[in-house]
Amino acid sequence: MRAAVIRGGRLVVGDVAEPEPGSGHVVVRPLAAGICGSDLHAALDFTHFTELMDKVGVPALDPGRDCVFGHEFCAEIVDHGPDTARTLPVGSRVCSVPIVVGPGGVEQIGYSNTYPGALGEQMVLQEMLLLPVPDSLDTDLAALTEPLAVGEHAVGLAGLVPGQPCLVVGCGPVGLAVIAALKGRGHGPVLAADFSPGRRALAEAFGADEVIDPATESPHDRWSRFGVARTIMERAASSMFGGAVKDPVVFEAVGVPGMLQSLIADVPPRSRIVVVGVCMHTDTIEPFVAVTKEVELRFSFGYTPAEFAATLERLAAGVPGARRLVTDVVDLDATPGAFETLRTPGEHGKILVTP
Amino acid sequence: MRAAVIRGGRLVVGDVAEPEPGSGHVVVRPLAAGICGSDLHAALDFTHFTELMDKVGVPALDPGRDCVFGHEFCAEIVDHGPDTARTLPVGSRVCSVPIVVGPGGVEQIGYSNTYPGALGEQMVLQEMLLLPVPDSLDTDLAALTEPLAVGEHAVGLAGLVPGQPCLVVGCGPVGLAVIAALKGRGHGPVLAADFSPGRRALAEAFGADEVIDPATESPHDRWSRFGVARTIMERAASSMFGGAVKDPVVFEAVGVPGMLQSLIADVPPRSRIVVVGVCMHTDTIEPFVAVTKEVELRFSFGYTPAEFAATLERLAAGVPGARRLVTDVVDLDATPGAFETLRTPGEHGKILVTP
Repeated sequence: MRAAVIRGGRLVVGDVAEPEPGSGHVVVRPLAAGICGSDLHAALDFTHFTELMDKVGVPALDPGRDCVFGHEFCAEIVDHGPDTARTLPVGSRVCSVPIVVGPGGVEQIGYSNTYPGALGEQMVLQEMLLLPVPDSLDTDLAALTEPLAVGEHAVGLAGLVPGQPCLVVGCGPVGLAVIAALKGRGHGPVLAADFSPGRRALAEAFGADEVIDPATESPHDRWSRFGVARTIMERAASSMFGGAVKDPVVFEAVGVPGMLQSLIADVPPRSRIVVVGVCMHTDTIEPFVAVTKEVELRFSFGYTPAEFAATLERLAAGVPGARRLVTDVVDLDATPGAFETLRTPGEHGKILVTP
Repeated sequence: MRAAVIRGGRLVVGDVAEPEPGSGHVVVRPLAAGICGSDLHAALDFTHFTELMDKVGVPALDPGRDCVFGHEFCAEIVDHGPDTARTLPVGSRVCSVPIVVGPGGVEQIGYSNTYPGALGEQMVLQEMLLLPVPDSLDTDLAALTEPLAVGEHAVGLAGLVPGQPCLVVGCGPVGLAVIAALKGRGHGPVLAADFSPGRRALAEAFGADEVIDPATESPHDRWSRFGVARTIMERAASSMFGGAVKDPVVFEAVGVPGMLQSLIADVPPRSRIVVVGVCMHTDTIEPFVAVTKEVELRFSFGYTPAEFAATLERLAAGVPGARRLVTDVVDLDATPGAFETLRTPGEHGKILVTP
């Protein structure tokens, strides 16, 4: 079958073996597959990416062998493998958390040498993890379940109290997913910051209450309007006189080196920073600043199956702005070009591939 | 009066002006003053220290002017200044949070060019912040209120649930303060790790349930005994099969560069790291590891007046091991030598100065 595949350290479109369904697997045809920021990094330096995976103890990925990316998808069942219940008939559209259990244990779909991801003509999924896509939900929107579930998880991890002011830094797919989850749960006020006018417009479409261009204004200059003390001394004074100080929650959705310390330096004291952007490089911080401000860093990763299912339901019920998140749809041959396009900071939201 | 003073970037014993009590101040004679890790750093590079203070927005300290350290103390009232209620008579022993309000606003006792700290023959304190020391409590122990309050605060910030396993990394005064607060509140099991046999013995005296020499065993090898999943895959498997996974809390009480990433790399997934050690240098971390393990970092600083008062009460009621924390008592002239001694990692707990 044809697939966009990492081969010899480069992303190329070529032929790969069709995956063999094992016990409990179904064979599906990917209908739409999103390109994720992690894919961009992995494609740029696959050896470094596999080293990072090794470092955190997830199953080994051999950088010398083929790997077909694609862990955000909506797919159609084309066949049932052995030992399946066949509850969902051939032709059903499905989503799934991107894991599959093979003879070697749990593998990540999209980051496996054995099980290709959705950037190919076929893949296998675990039948017990399949979620049927409601007829009313477009395939393109269903393919957003995975990236939006990341926001759902981060917002759950944030442990917000009602009325707690939130700032989302970076309005790419991850930041927008956070905004969707915040607004979907009635949290806010939600401020959102991004250098790109296109992404700021997306943040507004997703329901952000205020949208800020960091090139012209620090988002932190707005805190006092929401009852947040801006400095240690202001916070101490307010506490002393019984003021109802609100401590903000900041979602870091950029994931580049330097971002974390920039936030530690600029956020109000007692801020909670939920780190959702995945920075794949060594980073530098000033602990003294974090200590004296009593900053809290909560690193967020992935989602639970329940959060994934809830996100699909939320999409079916309607997520404002979600349709605008898909800024391009391309075929398999155009995949390497789409990776190049996304690598330049710009106006793009999510590019979907239709293998 | 005589004092140990930072003058021209060096710690010397010399003459400084007696502090003038302002409105609401009392004049006291320090009876015992502890040397803190922050003092050691500040004495080593006072200009860098003042730059750090500037960076976090606390009132300016001029590195070119005299500064008398000493923010951990028990003192005796010798005079009442203007506008005081004189509730506590001359001769009363007192403790206080180390802040004083002067014409220029709130100043930190021990890190001020105007108000000398406890490493001198006299200082002024804010009358309304004074806490009388119970007759039954020794002066040396009362001087431990401030460092032990740091542990009280960190344990409060940790948000522990009953039975949550705790590891204290570093058993100097900060780590011991954490152990005291943990055991005082009935938390545990408490593991404690330090390279120094003397400090490990102190950790045991403070009530640590298990004491580990990191030179011979990683403290993380003990987690499974306490129901903690060691790896991401172990944790996922345990959650999947309904296991009651416990997520540990690790207290970082060392405060040197590299320590944080060493913990991020070694702690079990979903660990909460409470950072109590104050690292005054730029540090590097690997965000990818923190993200995939969903580590949480809570930076802890200082204490509230209520936590300070509670710590004095706890000392009066008896803190196991506290007496052994004071490993030396020296006079003012020996202060620079005591700073040198403490700079070498070793067996010392707290050295008290009797000005």
